Amino acid sequence: MGKIYVVGIGPGKEEMLTAQAREALRSCDVIAGYKTYISLVRDRYPEKDIYENGMRGEEERCRRCLSMAMSGKKVALICSGDAGIYGMAALMLEVAAEEGFTDVEIIPGITAASSGAAILGAPVNHDFCVISLSDLLTPWQQIERRLRCAAEGDFVIVIYNPCSRGRAEHLRRACEILREILPADRIAGFAKNVGREGETRGICSLAKLPEQEIDMFTTVFIGNSETKAVDGRMITPRGYGDPIRRSK
Amino acid sequence: MGKIYVVGIGPGKEEMLTAQAREALRSCDVIAGYKTYISLVRDRYPEKDIYENGMRGEEERCRRCLSMAMSGKKVALICSGDAGIYGMAALMLEVAAEEGFTDVEIIPGITAASSGAAILGAPVNHDFCVISLSDLLTPWQQIERRLRCAAEGDFVIVIYNPCSRGRAEHLRRACEILREILPADRIAGFAKNVGREGETRGICSLAKLPEQEIDMFTTVFIGNSETKAVDGRMITPRGYGDPIRRSK
Repeated sequence: MGKIYVVGIGPGKEEMLTAQAREALRSCDVIAGYKTYISLVRDRYPEKDIYENGMRGEEERCRRCLSMAMSGKKVALICSGDAGIYGMAALMLEVAAEEGFTDVEIIPGITAASSGAAILGAPVNHDFCVISLSDLLTPWQQIERRLRCAAEGDFVIVIYNPCSRGRAEHLRRACEILREILPADRIAGFAKNVGREGETRGICSLAKLPEQEIDMFTTVFIGNSETKAVDGRMITPRGYGDPIRRSK
Repeated sequence: MGKIYVVGIGPGKEEMLTAQAREALRSCDVIAGYKTYISLVRDRYPEKDIYENGMRGEEERCRRCLSMAMSGKKVALICSGDAGIYGMAALMLEVAAEEGFTDVEIIPGITAASSGAAILGAPVNHDFCVISLSDLLTPWQQIERRLRCAAEGDFVIVIYNPCSRGRAEHLRRACEILREILPADRIAGFAKNVGREGETRGICSLAKLPEQEIDMFTTVFIGNSETKAVDGRMITPRGYGDPIRRSK
């Protein structure tokens, strides 16, 4: 009987895979995924069958994984970052449930909120929201509502999919909405190509964020009211009564 | 010259460490951490020096790590889950910056929002908030405000530190606040002792959540308006126009 692993591969660098994720990739018959993520792992597993397809092919990808698993194969469906945070876990479980197939195991991975934070310092060291600016599957109005609620709650805000072909203006519009509530000098940061070639990071004010070079491989961090820049690192203290701060 | 790694060890199970985290633990001279987390790794590294202390000893722990690093040692300061999500990254960076010590590397790990989600299904497969109910360093009023903003924004809500000795009523109070905005039948779930002995999970309505056996080793998940229970899994669809949902 076959099996499906939905595997979070983290940012892509081999050292950032968990042992569990690596074992799933080692033991499977087929590796399936979005073509860009397949290109990150293909060379490491030359002996595996590969199923890859493109954006908007997600449902077809899950159906193919299911049919291969139902014919007895072990399939590893890979996702960038975590398997369950904007990953394929939900859709794969739904497709599998329709056919009564239950042997689906979700293997978590390092999501961009963690991996991007690590190169910036500690920007999400308190309560936070993660919001995607992709409106392919979510009405833009709903995204705006969430940005406002996140700002009202003084959350650290982590933005996934800040822009890409076809939605270059999304980050600029998001910043305008946040600026209705947050001050211009709120600390912000970004992490690009984490764990890959061209890894970069930057720290700036919320007002200057739209001028930065931010693309679809970038994760954006907007601090809460306590966030500060210290020696080029973006740091959100663990709390409002942090001992370090209290003693100053 | 010494170095400090702030290492996220994930839920604690060896298979859920990244290769990068394992390498930091292998190459360091000293492993430092909260005593409960030290107990998770101590047996695997019998040759290492250990520095452990208790709750509220965080600042002392960071100062000891710094002084060991400044005397030339490689120190791995371990955190449960991720290093930067309610972990020690912020405080360690602040303590190090005070002394001008810059060789601090943050190594991310699998946070409970990912590892707990994986055993429940895919509860955080859309925009989400992470909120800690610990009021040791955050005024309770601020926590209440964030719960309300998260509910108003129709975010999936992930609750860390839902209760512990001294704050058993926090989860009950949080549920009351959420119930002012969310319906009684909103899908909720919890994941306990993930990757450790006694791993359990459960799915119930928001109304029934306060009756569940939830302790300090439990992470709580409250769905958004689209979250459903399918074959015993908690699933939040990837979007509001998910193909699977659209075709029904």
